[in-house]
Amino acid sequence: MNGFDYFLNYFSEKLKYEIAELGKRKPAKLYEPVTYSLDIGGKRIRPVLLLMSYNLFKPDFEKALPVAFAIELFHNFTLLHDDIMDDADLRRNNQTVHVKYSRNAAILSGDAMSILSYEYLSRCNSENLSEILELYTQTALKICEGQQFDMDFETSNQITVDDYLNMIGLKTAILLASSLKLGALVANAPSSDSNCLYEFGYNLGLAFQLQDDLLDTFGDKDEFGKNIGGDIVSNKKTFLLLNALKLADKFQKNELNKWLSSSQFDKTEKIIRVKKIFSELEIEKITRFMIEHYYRVATEWWEKLNVAEDKKEGLMHVANLLMNRRK
Amino acid sequence: MNGFDYFLNYFSEKLKYEIAELGKRKPAKLYEPVTYSLDIGGKRIRPVLLLMSYNLFKPDFEKALPVAFAIELFHNFTLLHDDIMDDADLRRNNQTVHVKYSRNAAILSGDAMSILSYEYLSRCNSENLSEILELYTQTALKICEGQQFDMDFETSNQITVDDYLNMIGLKTAILLASSLKLGALVANAPSSDSNCLYEFGYNLGLAFQLQDDLLDTFGDKDEFGKNIGGDIVSNKKTFLLLNALKLADKFQKNELNKWLSSSQFDKTEKIIRVKKIFSELEIEKITRFMIEHYYRVATEWWEKLNVAEDKKEGLMHVANLLMNRRK
Repeated sequence: MNGFDYFLNYFSEKLKYEIAELGKRKPAKLYEPVTYSLDIGGKRIRPVLLLMSYNLFKPDFEKALPVAFAIELFHNFTLLHDDIMDDADLRRNNQTVHVKYSRNAAILSGDAMSILSYEYLSRCNSENLSEILELYTQTALKICEGQQFDMDFETSNQITVDDYLNMIGLKTAILLASSLKLGALVANAPSSDSNCLYEFGYNLGLAFQLQDDLLDTFGDKDEFGKNIGGDIVSNKKTFLLLNALKLADKFQKNELNKWLSSSQFDKTEKIIRVKKIFSELEIEKITRFMIEHYYRVATEWWEKLNVAEDKKEGLMHVANLLMNRRK
Repeated sequence: MNGFDYFLNYFSEKLKYEIAELGKRKPAKLYEPVTYSLDIGGKRIRPVLLLMSYNLFKPDFEKALPVAFAIELFHNFTLLHDDIMDDADLRRNNQTVHVKYSRNAAILSGDAMSILSYEYLSRCNSENLSEILELYTQTALKICEGQQFDMDFETSNQITVDDYLNMIGLKTAILLASSLKLGALVANAPSSDSNCLYEFGYNLGLAFQLQDDLLDTFGDKDEFGKNIGGDIVSNKKTFLLLNALKLADKFQKNELNKWLSSSQFDKTEKIIRVKKIFSELEIEKITRFMIEHYYRVATEWWEKLNVAEDKKEGLMHVANLLMNRRK
């Protein structure tokens, strides 16, 4: 049974070729930022999940490649435009496109990348094209909606935990869910299975994002790969903070609000003090509980999936890689 | 036989309803700029041409509405993002989206609008969906390429007349051509006819853009609706200027280059002096000749179109409206 690494190598090779082809198109100033942003990498989780999902039902997974390219291009397009909106200088330790080229180049090349993703999609030779186009487009639109909610949250003090779960659902979980479902649709799989895969991916995506929130505050710097406490410093309304604000007593709420509203502070002190309140309120435990909850729901959908056990296990193995679980 | 006004009224009514529906979607900050930019109007030339093209072959033109919406949304998306890139404050006498809302709102709402156009496209219930998706996507991509060429031209001194014709082909003519062809594809028309319509639209688009260039310099302010000479003041590399640079003798070229490179000048004087060189070189005559050429080629393709004469005439009537010709 081919595992994640096999599909990752396969996809990476094919992508390298596509990047070279895209690099030949004119005008160069439009396509250079596209190939640059594809080149600087990423984990290629989504296209690999899509190929593996196709492979659950049919062996000739090269037929799912156009849609796998589409998903990877679309994902990178969203990162490219998000980086302009967030004024981010670095992405995967490389200059972001708007810094390396220009803001206008980043806007227009991003637009082209979004459309290019539909070029790949249009190459998928499937009798389910109509359904594939619809799911792909709804997914793309929901990611934009999620990004807008995320930006709205920065300036609102009325955000609930449910709002947050809805937002990360739109911004993160739906793309994992749809990648899996698209693979099944291209393979012309039974709709019961393609729906199982969608729900599996959606719940896994929520578990993954909550874990990312948790590690940002309670993780190990080397394992997480980023500095710990970044979300606390930037007042990010994560699952942790929103729960803390909900559960805090008057005294704790005052202190939290003091840190949230102060513009001059010592970063290390802020992290220590906010984490202390989180600990008092058992935020880590609550978050771990919710991660387990979504992970378990994902597993339940996975169990309902009506395909050969060895292939199913390959998929769960990827889920565990994503969640950094040894299993 | 229903003419342009009939289809324009029909489309405008249906669009009004769609705008109201889009206005109900959440988050409001994502969809408000979308409905605002659709609301401030435009001539709706492209969707009307699409509906009329469908109607050449079949009477139930409401079936082409989703693709007509798609084209109109896509066109407005390109204007929205172009306005950010050009730092334009006004569009159709209204504030541009990035001025009225914010730069980030304009980027993200534009992205959503581009994807929304695919949502409408995906609603077209056609056996030619694959071909429609491919033509639509290639058209969208070429418009991005045209925009990049246009931006490249601003900083290059090596632009030829052919480069310019290629650029306006990508940026303007292809969307007219594809609107007509898409109408035919949705109607399942014979490919000979859909290709005639494409060529008709492409050549008409070139004639239209060259006429726009001509009127900017040699038009009548009231008729043109903009101040005359704007292209000369801003050194825009139009068909007129590129031909003048090609045909100028040493003395004329020196004077042109002097005006192109000077940053401090009297606008009226610059316009008068550059127009004088244009007159010496018979640029107006050359441009009119080329407009006639493309208009004639468009007419030849129109004549080859194998549909009922009264319907054909409706289409030529629109072409003449577009070119401000009484016929």
